Amino acid sequence: MDLEIVTIGTELLLGHTIDTNAAYLARALAAVGVRVARRTSVPDTPEAIRGAVADALARTGFVVTSGGLGPTRDDRTRQAVADLYGVPLLVDAAYLDRLQARWRRLGRPGEMPEANRTQALYPAGATVLPNPRGSAPGLWLEGPPGVVVMLPGVPHELQGLTDDELVPRLAARSPEARVTRSLTIRTTGIPESRLADLVGPLEDTLAPATLAYLPTFDGVDLRLTTWVLPPGEASAALARARDRLLAAVGEWCYGEEGVDLAAVVLDRVRAAGGHLAVAESCTGGLVAARLTAVPGASAVFVGGIVAYENAVKVAELDVPEPTIRSEGAVSEAVVRAMAAGAQRRFGAEAVIAVTGVAGPEGGTAEKPVGTVWLCAAWRDTQRAVRIGVPGNRAEVRGRAAQAALDLMRRALSEPPDVRLARPGTHGNAPT
Amino acid sequence: MDLEIVTIGTELLLGHTIDTNAAYLARALAAVGVRVARRTSVPDTPEAIRGAVADALARTGFVVTSGGLGPTRDDRTRQAVADLYGVPLLVDAAYLDRLQARWRRLGRPGEMPEANRTQALYPAGATVLPNPRGSAPGLWLEGPPGVVVMLPGVPHELQGLTDDELVPRLAARSPEARVTRSLTIRTTGIPESRLADLVGPLEDTLAPATLAYLPTFDGVDLRLTTWVLPPGEASAALARARDRLLAAVGEWCYGEEGVDLAAVVLDRVRAAGGHLAVAESCTGGLVAARLTAVPGASAVFVGGIVAYENAVKVAELDVPEPTIRSEGAVSEAVVRAMAAGAQRRFGAEAVIAVTGVAGPEGGTAEKPVGTVWLCAAWRDTQRAVRIGVPGNRAEVRGRAAQAALDLMRRALSEPPDVRLARPGTHGNAPT
Repeated sequence: MDLEIVTIGTELLLGHTIDTNAAYLARALAAVGVRVARRTSVPDTPEAIRGAVADALARTGFVVTSGGLGPTRDDRTRQAVADLYGVPLLVDAAYLDRLQARWRRLGRPGEMPEANRTQALYPAGATVLPNPRGSAPGLWLEGPPGVVVMLPGVPHELQGLTDDELVPRLAARSPEARVTRSLTIRTTGIPESRLADLVGPLEDTLAPATLAYLPTFDGVDLRLTTWVLPPGEASAALARARDRLLAAVGEWCYGEEGVDLAAVVLDRVRAAGGHLAVAESCTGGLVAARLTAVPGASAVFVGGIVAYENAVKVAELDVPEPTIRSEGAVSEAVVRAMAAGAQRRFGAEAVIAVTGVAGPEGGTAEKPVGTVWLCAAWRDTQRAVRIGVPGNRAEVRGRAAQAALDLMRRALSEPPDVRLARPGTHGNAPT
Repeated sequence: MDLEIVTIGTELLLGHTIDTNAAYLARALAAVGVRVARRTSVPDTPEAIRGAVADALARTGFVVTSGGLGPTRDDRTRQAVADLYGVPLLVDAAYLDRLQARWRRLGRPGEMPEANRTQALYPAGATVLPNPRGSAPGLWLEGPPGVVVMLPGVPHELQGLTDDELVPRLAARSPEARVTRSLTIRTTGIPESRLADLVGPLEDTLAPATLAYLPTFDGVDLRLTTWVLPPGEASAALARARDRLLAAVGEWCYGEEGVDLAAVVLDRVRAAGGHLAVAESCTGGLVAARLTAVPGASAVFVGGIVAYENAVKVAELDVPEPTIRSEGAVSEAVVRAMAAGAQRRFGAEAVIAVTGVAGPEGGTAEKPVGTVWLCAAWRDTQRAVRIGVPGNRAEVRGRAAQAALDLMRRALSEPPDVRLARPGTHGNAPT
């Protein structure tokens, strides 16, 4: 089955907004064997919307739109599509009640503004697709010109409606499915070129699955894809390819699909019967933020100290001031003392400590920007490594946080005599 | 002047590649007063390319394409456009020599493959636009159907050709320079619909500037744009519209263009001669991470405590245990005690404290998921507010961090007797 995507918003045509909605839709549709034949972006004028939707319907008879369903004057998709189908807009009284209840529930003062009422309008004959993440519902309209599915433009709302409503409804329409499926293996701490050395010799044996290297901010994801196969065949081929790939990647793999390294670390600490705390300097709360982003983190994560000033390292983490003076704040002695201090202070078995030069200022010849010392403490053992991280301030901080989490993962999964991660192999520059 | 962009490549329709070329082109074209009327992405089949280019020419008479000019089998733009214009492909002998010289200069072995010779082909009548960054030149073809400018899809090659060839040639076509300019005003803590109540009555007076509402994760940006005006007129119109808009938006605006609220807060604390620390529970390091993401944060930011477990709130921040028992960890008394504790511990004049229910677990009838208490302490004054934040765990945490930063901004910019931010007005759900 083919369809077209029409994304609506003048911003898209000014180039200030990158169109991520179309990409999300395309990936989700591929997973149920639907092919996107064309993508169009138009400004939010009624003529442009009507024209693009009509053109797309004439070619494929099925269109998904994003954007133009909000409460303001530049939200015109509803009306334009209703005009195209020659149907009036009606008020969904139940949805209006929901909107008003939501307004009160969020504790907003006064009456809901008139503008919000437009979000309860739907073209006669359309199915209203509930959107628990926002106030604009999706709309599914079928008629003689074809099917138009209207989704809101706010990315997480579009994504939720795609997963909860659009994809299941499309899957239900085609009983004999052929699917395009993907599976992702996540690695960190190894550059893309080195990963290619490990995996390259294997590539031909992965067929019919194809392999893509996807360097991300803090690692390289390996994506296996099988294209347009019956579901059973696709699953079997993917499983075979996955096993081969995992055997080659080994210790560098920390998980699959969307798993976050922070969740892996929390699981390991929990399984080992411990609690986790952090002591951060250059990452400034980033490691704690990643850990606490994981639902249920509170069962394992106790707390942390952001010791940004040296005085805080001394007062809060008992780092000896003479050590900071003689070794510098970015040093093995200091990161080990930070970890030990946090263990004592929080009574935590596991501690991640980080100190480094995030830049843009503060680099020296011996310790250039990107120099970071990491320590993973587990009961009475410590692993400390120095890494050199490429990139700007945000990249150094992000990659240092990732490398720190990975050091803790390895500390809890490898026997104590395993060779440490080599200095310099973290950083994940896409080389 | 209007034109359309057609980006060519099957990967764009699979959603694995985000279309950044179209955004780059749109921004570059806006700067010389050219408006992008529509953007289309098609797969790299001859029919799809021919169809999309023909449709676009019929609407505007001017099309810029990207992609499909490489040496491989799936590079078909040249041929498809030549077919559309009914002209043959010719060999550019000089360009062929250049390609062969480049092949030798890069030290590649043997003769240049036949496939590369296709890159010296051009539709009869086209101007060849040299591409020093790669092997595929741009092509500029004018004929009865209109103008087609073909650019390669590799982003840095497309960008180079846009800047060096496309933009100067377009500017030369319109002797009287006209520009499209934008300016962004950032707001937070006010829902889109309420902002529309403030700003709506004003919209007509902003002309010739137009206004767009851009809801983001943690606020609503207002973008003013003037279209295709002489540069002086554009600047004056934008400045007028900006002043009117700022007067209407008032306290809800925290900055302009790409400024981050964390940087605004650091500036305010610095200007007031203070230092800043944080005490975080549900945001778990996120406020500290946003502050320390700002280059130079160390001049103002001292450090923080992530007090995730209640025991840490007691031990590290001197929150009285009986208060936690009687009021609960998410309460005004606790957030005020956290702020006072962090002020003492870090010797900081300014402290941001946060405690709340991030979910998905932990909500109750009186304190549902999304209930967050914030406190901004400045010397011996405190402001504390309770807010209700919609969304999932990541959204609650992100919006709570934003609201906490905003409370500190207001504490340092408003006289102490100004009415506090109303409970419930934070949250920024794009309603």
